[in-house]
Amino acid sequence: MISQSGSAMVVGVGPERGLGAALAMCFAEKGLHVFMIGRSEEKLNNIVKLIQETGRSATAIVADVTDEQDVGRCFDVLRERGDIIQVAAYNVDSNIPAPFLQTDVTTFTTLWQQNCLGAFLFAKEIVAIMQAQQQGTVFFTGATGSLRAKPPFTAFASAKAGMRALAQGLAREFSPLGVHVVHTVIDGVIDGDRARNQFPEYVEAKGQEGLLQLEAIAQTYWAIHQQPRCAWTHELDLRPFKEPF
Amino acid sequence: MISQSGSAMVVGVGPERGLGAALAMCFAEKGLHVFMIGRSEEKLNNIVKLIQETGRSATAIVADVTDEQDVGRCFDVLRERGDIIQVAAYNVDSNIPAPFLQTDVTTFTTLWQQNCLGAFLFAKEIVAIMQAQQQGTVFFTGATGSLRAKPPFTAFASAKAGMRALAQGLAREFSPLGVHVVHTVIDGVIDGDRARNQFPEYVEAKGQEGLLQLEAIAQTYWAIHQQPRCAWTHELDLRPFKEPF
Amino acid sequence: MISQSGSAMVVGVGPERGLGAALAMCFAEKGLHVFMIGRSEEKLNNIVKLIQETGRSATAIVADVTDEQDVGRCFDVLRERGDIIQVAAYNVDSNIPAPFLQTDVTTFTTLWQQNCLGAFLFAKEIVAIMQAQQQGTVFFTGATGSLRAKPPFTAFASAKAGMRALAQGLAREFSPLGVHVVHTVIDGVIDGDRARNQFPEYVEAKGQEGLLQLEAIAQTYWAIHQQPRCAWTHELDLRPFKEPF
Amino acid sequence: MISQSGSAMVVGVGPERGLGAALAMCFAEKGLHVFMIGRSEEKLNNIVKLIQETGRSATAIVADVTDEQDVGRCFDVLRERGDIIQVAAYNVDSNIPAPFLQTDVTTFTTLWQQNCLGAFLFAKEIVAIMQAQQQGTVFFTGATGSLRAKPPFTAFASAKAGMRALAQGLAREFSPLGVHVVHTVIDGVIDGDRARNQFPEYVEAKGQEGLLQLEAIAQTYWAIHQQPRCAWTHELDLRPFKEPF
Repeated sequence: MISQSGSAMVVGVGPERGLGAALAMCFAEKGLHVFMIGRSEEKLNNIVKLIQETGRSATAIVADVTDEQDVGRCFDVLRERGDIIQVAAYNVDSNIPAPFLQTDVTTFTTLWQQNCLGAFLFAKEIVAIMQAQQQGTVFFTGATGSLRAKPPFTAFASAKAGMRALAQGLAREFSPLGVHVVHTVIDGVIDGDRARNQFPEYVEAKGQEGLLQLEAIAQTYWAIHQQPRCAWTHELDLRPFKEPF
Repeated sequence: MISQSGSAMVVGVGPERGLGAALAMCFAEKGLHVFMIGRSEEKLNNIVKLIQETGRSATAIVADVTDEQDVGRCFDVLRERGDIIQVAAYNVDSNIPAPFLQTDVTTFTTLWQQNCLGAFLFAKEIVAIMQAQQQGTVFFTGATGSLRAKPPFTAFASAKAGMRALAQGLAREFSPLGVHVVHTVIDGVIDGDRARNQFPEYVEAKGQEGLLQLEAIAQTYWAIHQQPRCAWTHELDLRPFKEPF
Repeated sequence: MISQSGSAMVVGVGPERGLGAALAMCFAEKGLHVFMIGRSEEKLNNIVKLIQETGRSATAIVADVTDEQDVGRCFDVLRERGDIIQVAAYNVDSNIPAPFLQTDVTTFTTLWQQNCLGAFLFAKEIVAIMQAQQQGTVFFTGATGSLRAKPPFTAFASAKAGMRALAQGLAREFSPLGVHVVHTVIDGVIDGDRARNQFPEYVEAKGQEGLLQLEAIAQTYWAIHQQPRCAWTHELDLRPFKEPF
Repeated sequence: MISQSGSAMVVGVGPERGLGAALAMCFAEKGLHVFMIGRSEEKLNNIVKLIQETGRSATAIVADVTDEQDVGRCFDVLRERGDIIQVAAYNVDSNIPAPFLQTDVTTFTTLWQQNCLGAFLFAKEIVAIMQAQQQGTVFFTGATGSLRAKPPFTAFASAKAGMRALAQGLAREFSPLGVHVVHTVIDGVIDGDRARNQFPEYVEAKGQEGLLQLEAIAQTYWAIHQQPRCAWTHELDLRPFKEPF
């Protein structure tokens, strides 16, 4: 059964406690069918199951978002369903901190491919669809580094700044055509599987309110998506109240 | 009867179709008692009446927000009620465009007093209250000029940039203490009495969706106020989809 | 005897080891007569003497730069000489750090008057002169706080952000008319009498190269003044190499 | 004969009337041997000849700056000479304007490779050298798009924003180690062979002072290179006085 209210798309869905999954579950809860793109079939299927358990529907697509053909294939699946795409999010966030002189060309390139080139490939498809629909919201999830480059995050910041400029150019070109382009600046650590696995002591020290909770981020994405087009936000920051900035 | 959910405060309430009134009516609709500060008793009473007609309550206070004693008096009234202040907005927006060499010292000073000094006087009181409460959201309504100074708006931009820095400093100092400080960048023309009286042809030419609708702005203020403190926005822009930027 | 090459003007000349004095001495060394505005006759006369000892000339004017009539009087003196004004600098920098709730309205207002209103009064006069000349460079000396507001410098940052916006608006309006408007962001501590008196341990700890040397700043001001108008800089930062940012 | 004062390096040297050549000729004129990297042997040899005619010396290296091995080879040549490298500039500026939906992945990737990846490859080598020297200035030539993404320059802006973040991260990491990292924002059209060939009417309409003259840009690069390390500029804009911004 096709949902009356259309579909959503989230690129970069991984662990159950991750922002991609949280956005997908939020969009599903609101009644949208959700297309989820990720690299791990197992992880995607897990989220599909969770969504189905709530009586909603989702489609998992395993793809490499830095590969043009893979991205094209994702959108073929999406077009088959024929839904209006209400909202989409490019949520790939890949970071490899290193002192600059220890950052090799592969790292620099990979970070750009995942944080910026993938966003470009995604944008080409989604913006064309939303322009034709004359509606839709597209999110690009940025980070502190999108605005300020600090070691050991120089390579990451370079990639994220490239994605931010992409989002800004898209907003200027496609807002007048009815496409709501949003860039979020996530300034702080997200309380999810990644942080809990990679730096558990930090997570512990910050405490629950010192970390960005997944549902709280999703709540703001949805609120921004609800904006009527006479008053659109293009860029906003999100940070825990305790976070220095 | 005192509302269970506390009070709100809006500084800079004027015409019925103005952002101050719209914020007040939005906060009232959500169940908050609203303290409204403005210069015209007649205009304030009109909004009180509109709010009362919806079964809600409001208090009108005539005051000059650039005068320390007047501002103190407003907060005396507010403290008498003894409510929690959930949300407050400094919404004074005074603009006198002029070529720079025709901008006199009185204009430059007045714009600063209304856009920046008043915000400071308001902040001193509201931040102390919210810090004691360990909760509350305080909005500062900014403009395009807050970020970019362009003639003939140099004096206005100087004042607004001053207010933006004030809001930013407050966010850094009081967020960790539980006060949510928000700066909004209103980038475009608000569809209200001011624009309709001052440049009706422009309003006509832009059309309804080319202008920021009052209720749409209020909707976003409320959504930002709803953010849990683990994921607060400090700054966001709001503009019509057609607005070049 | 009137100098062939014209005059310079520095507003905010105080101690011998201060940026105002350093700019004045630099401009004098380049062959310009220098008008110096400050609050202390004694300090000004000291700099006049130093400049005269090098065979150059200067005029000291005691004035309160936040007072319109005083500023008018300074420019009367300047106009009497009838020189071309090659370069001018608004160099007043007044800072009173305090936690926000301990910042009173007098402090907030005074910081604005000295850092921003004085710049406005100065700008009104100097821009009119340089527009008529169709040449001239006018500097506004900013600070870290001009771009980022951090406690305990919120009031200072508000005033400096206001001055920055003023300079930006002036650049947009008067560059096409031949007036070079420059805003400098001094990001770090200047090695002068003020720092040495107020926080000598900090000065000691930073070491000579960890502090902005007066002559080094003046050298860059002069280099920017030398730019042909086909390639003007409007804004630049200056910081010691060791300074974190 | 090896110059006493060391060497300079310019990456991105093409036509005689281009910024790369102008920087090379400026650095040569100041007494530095100049290593010049470009894609056209003919063009490079032409500049070598011009430099030699002034009694100075230069080395031409044909290389693809987006290829890691080619860049390594350039630095092998440079290291052979054994000079101190006083100053270096990454000056590759490649732009292909297009509506977003007509920008293909090859264009997006190529612009990033030339404007950003090449800067990374260059930075890895030059920063290591200058860190060892404990001195040296490295310039990254940016553009309007480095700060603001506007169609039809979205792909270009994305690449340039990436390079800007790279430069900013480098400045934060290597300034304290004695390496002066500078990012310039060229805001306007450079009066050179490229503009004269590609849009001659625009060049004609702007007039000489409406375009950035090559020597004027080089003059500012040199002035910034002369800054003592107690007062370094990291970022500055350069635009013709008539240019709207």
